[in-house]
Parts: sequence; structure tokens; C-alpha cells
Amino acid sequence: MNIPRTSFPRIVIIGGGFAGVALAKKLSKQEVQVVLLDKHNYHTFQPLLYQVSTGGLEPDSIAYPIRKILKDFPNFYFRLANVEEIDTEKNKVVTDIGKLKFDYLVVASGSTTNYFGNAEIEKNSMAMKTVPQSLNLRSLILENFEDALLTSDLNERNALMNFVIVGGGPTGVELAGALAEIKKGILPKDYPDLDTRMAQIHIIQSGDCILKGMSEKASHKAEDFLEKLGVQVWKNVRVTNYDGKTVTTNTDLTFETATVVWAAGVKGATIKGLDAEDFITRGNRILVNEFNQVKGFGHIFAAGDIACMVTDEFPNGLPMMAQPAIQQGEQLGDNMLRLIEEKPMEPFKYKDKGAMATIGRNKAVVDLKRWKFQGVFAWYVWMFVHLFFLIGFRNRMVVFVNWVYNYIRFDREARLIIRPFKKKLKSE
Amino acid sequence: MNIPRTSFPRIVIIGGGFAGVALAKKLSKQEVQVVLLDKHNYHTFQPLLYQVSTGGLEPDSIAYPIRKILKDFPNFYFRLANVEEIDTEKNKVVTDIGKLKFDYLVVASGSTTNYFGNAEIEKNSMAMKTVPQSLNLRSLILENFEDALLTSDLNERNALMNFVIVGGGPTGVELAGALAEIKKGILPKDYPDLDTRMAQIHIIQSGDCILKGMSEKASHKAEDFLEKLGVQVWKNVRVTNYDGKTVTTNTDLTFETATVVWAAGVKGATIKGLDAEDFITRGNRILVNEFNQVKGFGHIFAAGDIACMVTDEFPNGLPMMAQPAIQQGEQLGDNMLRLIEEKPMEPFKYKDKGAMATIGRNKAVVDLKRWKFQGVFAWYVWMFVHLFFLIGFRNRMVVFVNWVYNYIRFDREARLIIRPFKKKLKSE
Repeated sequence: MNIPRTSFPRIVIIGGGFAGVALAKKLSKQEVQVVLLDKHNYHTFQPLLYQVSTGGLEPDSIAYPIRKILKDFPNFYFRLANVEEIDTEKNKVVTDIGKLKFDYLVVASGSTTNYFGNAEIEKNSMAMKTVPQSLNLRSLILENFEDALLTSDLNERNALMNFVIVGGGPTGVELAGALAEIKKGILPKDYPDLDTRMAQIHIIQSGDCILKGMSEKASHKAEDFLEKLGVQVWKNVRVTNYDGKTVTTNTDLTFETATVVWAAGVKGATIKGLDAEDFITRGNRILVNEFNQVKGFGHIFAAGDIACMVTDEFPNGLPMMAQPAIQQGEQLGDNMLRLIEEKPMEPFKYKDKGAMATIGRNKAVVDLKRWKFQGVFAWYVWMFVHLFFLIGFRNRMVVFVNWVYNYIRFDREARLIIRPFKKKLKSE
Repeated sequence: MNIPRTSFPRIVIIGGGFAGVALAKKLSKQEVQVVLLDKHNYHTFQPLLYQVSTGGLEPDSIAYPIRKILKDFPNFYFRLANVEEIDTEKNKVVTDIGKLKFDYLVVASGSTTNYFGNAEIEKNSMAMKTVPQSLNLRSLILENFEDALLTSDLNERNALMNFVIVGGGPTGVELAGALAEIKKGILPKDYPDLDTRMAQIHIIQSGDCILKGMSEKASHKAEDFLEKLGVQVWKNVRVTNYDGKTVTTNTDLTFETATVVWAAGVKGATIKGLDAEDFITRGNRILVNEFNQVKGFGHIFAAGDIACMVTDEFPNGLPMMAQPAIQQGEQLGDNMLRLIEEKPMEPFKYKDKGAMATIGRNKAVVDLKRWKFQGVFAWYVWMFVHLFFLIGFRNRMVVFVNWVYNYIRFDREARLIIRPFKKKLKSE
């Protein structure tokens, strides 16, 4: 890869997610060369992907050009690349656009959907981890309703209008709530010639509660909210398969549906060459020490979802969420500068800022350290926090306009099938 | 197709563009059944597609769900369908989702890119008539700059940074201006390690002026504006071929480029079964009388780009633009109601509201009937008119936010490669 060598040490960062961007920002204007590699040319604000899938937001408002984030930093290089392998002996990363030597490497490659080895579910269900995936889901939902109009087979029509969400974490809960609001507010107007009351939204959770990482109060209230919205919540049910028509479970329950959204798990997006058994831990994550160093290396780090950092409070590793990623990225930046200057690094301490999820208009749950609350105020807090963490003034303004409009008009106007998912356009 | 028969006459409209939507709105709440067919589930505001291609606007802000436009009209049916054939004997349209009988038919299928029979140009160049096409162009432009970073071959790098726009109409001129502003304002910041001064923007026009349909003053001023922005304007040059690498012309001029945008012509998007030689006229348009009736039929109409309505002022047919389409759609609505009530129809009279084009910030040309002006004020008028004609309050707000932001910050933030055009994403 065509990047000039300078006298500064070269830090290669794999991934422009929360951890990678926070780290790169910390390293800006320092005496290091930073090369950021990502397969997209934009940073994705993943917490709002479900709003893209449900037509509430345009994808462009939750994505931000990576080049722009670091445009004022002269020693910053971005390359659009798929990293294929890490050569830890020669200190090189191998990508689809060539090889690159590094002095320091930070793997911030994030996570990917975990199908727990079930290839049929992987093939037939939808994921929602990236912008294109979310747009595919948006198209599929809308295409299903268009197709429901065309069939006179009642079972087929019901299957087209049934939505099964597997996984009761924030993603599943937020998506279910948004779908329920579409069912109530938009479908009857858009499809007057369809009995949209038949549309069903199921959320299937293998454990005995939804929003497992949050307080009992939040979990209960979220379930209440979902049920008020007409979502059917199934607990202690584990999905065993989906063949494209029928969801089977470990109980007698089955679901006929054309749409399964798999939000039941994520796993670290490991890279060949840095996947030795002795440091890959549960969830396919890379075990790191309190300085984000990968076991056995002083100059190779991992941060964010891919990194499994064990603390007293989190014996299975910090949660795979935005906050630990941002905090690790920031601290790792400081630590790498310390390391280069041969000063002692400081151990990472996670500041748990709490968790939140929104279920629908005026319905959210918020767990702060000392204060847990639910309802309208929680909903405002949720919106404020998400606007605050969104990168870019324009994005914030556009999201704000959309939210105000959607709130006042009970609407979601981005219900556009721009790239059909089921059938390709004959001509574009 | 599964649409109930009522006692009301059924009007089938093919196409949800300016003409189709204006017509459907006129027919709403009348004693007719309206079935609108379109291959997209949204109306596209085509005049702003070039801003999507250049990252200035998100596609969702210039598209509007067709179902929403007519949600309060109980006798309105929309179907997402490709119309394959019109059976004028049995009064049926044949589509990919089934057949449909009509009492009245309005073909408002618009226009498509005219390559004048050159299959190689069609294969290798980009068009900008639909949202997906515009997004493809956006991806290609950005991918080219990413690729330019990777090559050490100077000729290849220049080809990746050269843009050839064929056609000096409003589309070509507006796109060229937008690319020139990107070159000036964004590329040097985004690609500090690339000599973006080498990027060239060419506009090739076969005639002896650009913006042919406008006043001489507008044409000259637009050319001035383009030249000030660094666009190279080639007049009296006709492109003869583009093999994916080299543009050849009828002169000695050739251009090495990875990106050709073909904006040199459009033609009517005719449909099999309604393409008899005796009424298909130049530009593949359907000749209609002053009531938009297709020759030989009393109940089959054509409106908008596809319809060639000859007037004293426009012996080759009304221009293929938004205004004639909207006006025809509206008047045709009134006329169809008159026809159904067996009242005499009124001949269409085109109210020429003028034409306008924008070249860049503070740079536009406006021709009104009595007043032609250029520059800053023209630019404000251009923006106001486009915001006014855009459908939907949310769209107007989002476009407005983007424009204010882009103006103040000299920026275009939607420079995102969401669906790569050149190479497919390995995993999304």
C-alpha cells in the first residue's frame, strides 16, 4: 500500500467504528502517523440502524464520512480496504489493496452477527449490523406488504405480514417497537385494501427476560410497553431453525413468516493471523489486558466489541456497546502516546454511564447508576443522548427534523424501496 | 391483478412521475377508481438527482412514498409493477404481477436515457434518471478517488480523476458545476495525499451552445460560470464512442476517463402494444392531440415526457420537463372527468413559466417570460422554486437544512459509498 514512511511511528487502526474513531481523534495532531482501514468510507452510528430499517431516518443521517472526521490531521491516512490477514511475525496487515507494515496495530474490527453455527438461519434471516443490511431490511418489509396485496392465499398473506424478531436485547426491542408503531400509524393508511390488523410482531427471547443487561424494572416496563403496542413477547423460547418459511423453536411453538430478523447475538469479527486459541475467548473476542494489549504482544492492541477486557464487575468482558468502545479508544490513544514516549501506561477503568432503550413514542427505559426511570422523560433523555453522540452537526439537524416531524405527524416518510431486496429491478 | 371492480369507471395510470401524480391528485375524491402503477414505490423529484450524485442531498429527501400522496383518497390503488405490454384490443395492461382491465388508460411512463443506439456507450457510461442510478454515480465518483490513491500509474490516476459529462442541458451543466465545487472545496481536504488539482471536469456539447432551450444570455452566463469554476466546456463536439477507457469524438479530441455521465438525450419510455409507427414520433414519444389523447383512441391518453404534444410554439412537441408534465396531468384530470360526464373537454394550453439552472453557489440563470437574470438572486429564486415544488414538508425541511449547512460550511456530507458500484462488498 502506497503510504509514505515518515520518521513518526506508524499506527494502523483496523475499523472506523466507535473505538477506531475515538482512538484516531486522540492521536490527531500528535507525532504519529495514523492509517485507518475500513471496508466502508463512513462511520456508522449503529444504535439508530433500526430507525433506518423502519423508514424513520435516512441512512445518510446516521453515517459520517471517515475522511471528514480527521480532515485537519496531516498525518492521517484513510484507506478503503478489506483486511484479510494480520502477519504478526513481519508486522504487516494484508488487505485486498495490498500489504502495509505497522509499528503499532489496533484491531477495532467490531462485531458481526452470531448465528451460532446455524447456516440455514444465516441464509434466510435478516441482520441489522450495517447500513446496507438495514436498507435491505427496509426494502424487504415494504416489499412484503406490496406482495401481501397480490396473494389471495390467506396463509401466505399472513406470513408476509408477520415479523419475527429473535433476540430481546436493545436492538430487538427497539425494532419491535418501531414495527408496532408502523402497524398502527402507517399501514392502515398506506394499505387500505389490506387487513393490516392481521400483521403480527413477535419477539422471541431465549432467556426469562428482555433487555437482560438492564435493571429488572426497565425489563418489566419495556415488556409492558411492547405489549401495549401489540407486540407478542415470547420468553424462555429458543429458536432452533428458520427455513425461509417456518420458524421452529425448542418448544411446540412455530411461526409462519417471511421475515426473521436475527438480533440474538453478536461475535467478535476476528481476523486471520490474530486468532490464536489462547487469546480468543467466548463470543469470538480477543482477550486483552487492562491496557488493551493482546496477550503476547506489546505493540498489538484490540479495542471495542472485538476486545474482551475482563474486570471484577464484568467477568465475561465489558459489554459490546458504544460506551466501552469510545472510552477504550480514548484511553488507548493516551496510552499509545505514553508507550511511544516510554512512559508507563495507565490501566483502563470503565465508567458505566448506564443503558437505555426506546420502545416507542413517549416510551423508553433508562438505567443510570443511581437513578432508573421509564416513560416520557426517559424518552426525551434517550433522544437527547442519541443526538449528542451522533457525529456531525448536519446529521444532528437532519435527525432532529425527522424526529420532530415523525412525532407530530405519527409518520415515517423514508418508506422507500430504493434497492429492492427480493427481486432486482429490471432496469434502474 | 387483485383490484375490486366498483361501479366507478377505472382509470389506470402508468407512472408516478410529475404527470401521473398531478393527474392522480386531480382525480382524488372524484367518482372514479384510480389505479397507479409504478416500478418504484416512490415519486422521484428528478431535478435534484444531480445533488444526490454529488453527495449534497440524501436520496430519501427527494423521493416521496406514492402511497402517502394519495392516502386520503378511498378509491385509489397503487401497485408496484413493471408494465410489460398494453393490450389495446382488450383494454388490458399486462404487468409482471398480472393483468388489469382499464376503462381509461393514461400512459405517463416518462422518459429514459437515449444512447442513440450506441450499445458500448450504454454499457460503459452512467445515467442519472433514477435514484438508484444517481446513487451508483455517487458511489463511482467516490470509489474512483479511493482507487486513484492506490495506483502509481499517472495516466490511470488522471483517468480516475477525470469526469466527462456528455450533454450541455440543465442536467449536464448542474452536475458539472457541482463536481467543480467538490473538486475545489472537498477533495483537497479529503484527499490530502492526492494532487486533486489534476482532477478535470469536461462537458461536451454537440451543438454550439449549452442550455440550448434557454436564452442566449443565460447560456453565455452559464458558460462563464462553468469556466470560472474550472469546468472545460467543449462545444460543437459530438461523442462517438466510449469503451470504458477512452472517449472518442467526431474531432481529434479524445478523453481518457473512468467516468462518463451520459446526459446527452432522453427518449420516451414507450411500452409494447402502444408503439405503433403512426403515432410514435421523434424522440420515441407518443403523439397526442390537445386533449392528450393518443391518435386513434378516445380512452387512451399519454402525458408528460412520453407525450409529444405539438403546439405553434413547440413544433417538435412540448419540452420534456417537469412543468409541461404537471400542467398536463392537472388538466387531463379535469378533462377525464368532463369526458366521463360527457361534457366537452378543453384543449391544453401550456403556460410557459420559464426555465432555470444552477451552476454553483450564488451562480444560477433564470429565464422568466419577461425577465431574465443571472447570479446570486437567480440562485435564491432557483432554490425557492425547487423547495416549493418538492413534495412533502419533511423533504422540504431536510433539503433546506442540507442546503443551509452546505452553503455555510462549503460541504457535502452525503459522500458515502453505501452500495459500491465497481466492486461488490464482500460482506455487508
